[in-house]
Amino acid sequence: MPARLDLTEYLPYLINRVGSSLVARFSEHALAGTRLDIATWRVLAALSHRGPLRQIDIAEITSMEVSTISRLITRLVQMGLVSRNRSRLSNREVVVELTPKATALVERLIPIAHKLEDAATQGLSKKERADLKRALRRMHENLSRRKPPP
Amino acid sequence: MPARLDLTEYLPYLINRVGSSLVARFSEHALAGTRLDIATWRVLAALSHRGPLRQIDIAEITSMEVSTISRLITRLVQMGLVSRNRSRLSNREVVVELTPKATALVERLIPIAHKLEDAATQGLSKKERADLKRALRRMHENLSRRKPPP
Repeated sequence: MPARLDLTEYLPYLINRVGSSLVARFSEHALAGTRLDIATWRVLAALSHRGPLRQIDIAEITSMEVSTISRLITRLVQMGLVSRNRSRLSNREVVVELTPKATALVERLIPIAHKLEDAATQGLSKKERADLKRALRRMHENLSRRKPPP
Repeated sequence: MPARLDLTEYLPYLINRVGSSLVARFSEHALAGTRLDIATWRVLAALSHRGPLRQIDIAEITSMEVSTISRLITRLVQMGLVSRNRSRLSNREVVVELTPKATALVERLIPIAHKLEDAATQGLSKKERADLKRALRRMHENLSRRKPPP
């Protein structure tokens, strides 16, 4: 019998489908009217969450390529939303940080982000939401684990 | 106090992060060596799962725009992996279906897709996997629900 892939039972499919809906909703309800798209929003959210970061760290947090991040940062600098500065910790390092304008913008979008999460998880109990997060964190660990050296 | 977005607790972030890792792994382990990328793979997987489909149905199943699907189908036709045919049900409808070459290719990739799901969910019990799928399906329903008319 040939191999079958039942999409309705296939986790990568179910995850992509929810992820796409979340992006569509957030773009429609929060980003419309700003000059942000989902990728630039993710960069700003990472900087808001973690403070000034090197481009390589932003790439790691947002699951994007360093080359993509570099392009997005250039755009965000032009929009007056981030600045590139020497790190206070190491003078040889350049870090990216939010401008006050971006901080205000992110603060305006965060409540919409929380409302989206609430709408998406309606009908799930507090325990079910916690279990879901734990399962997703475990999956991420599993997928990040490097293969042992041969 | 300003609004905060703790990414480590924010479901859309956790979902995007796992989704990105799954795409990276599948691209590396299954698609490298084929001429497919993740988007064309998703089209083939949808057709393998459901049989001949209209482009609008492929867009719905894969969470992609119809215009994107149209472009991908043109590419897949050129690669000899799908064909456009008159529907057997309605002569006015065009459906897309896998060629025998694509059927063989998808059958070769499906076991790798299943192995990826197993690797990603290592350490989760059968019940935890079922709960995770149920929660993701519920989220998708919540997000698909149209707003009631005013």
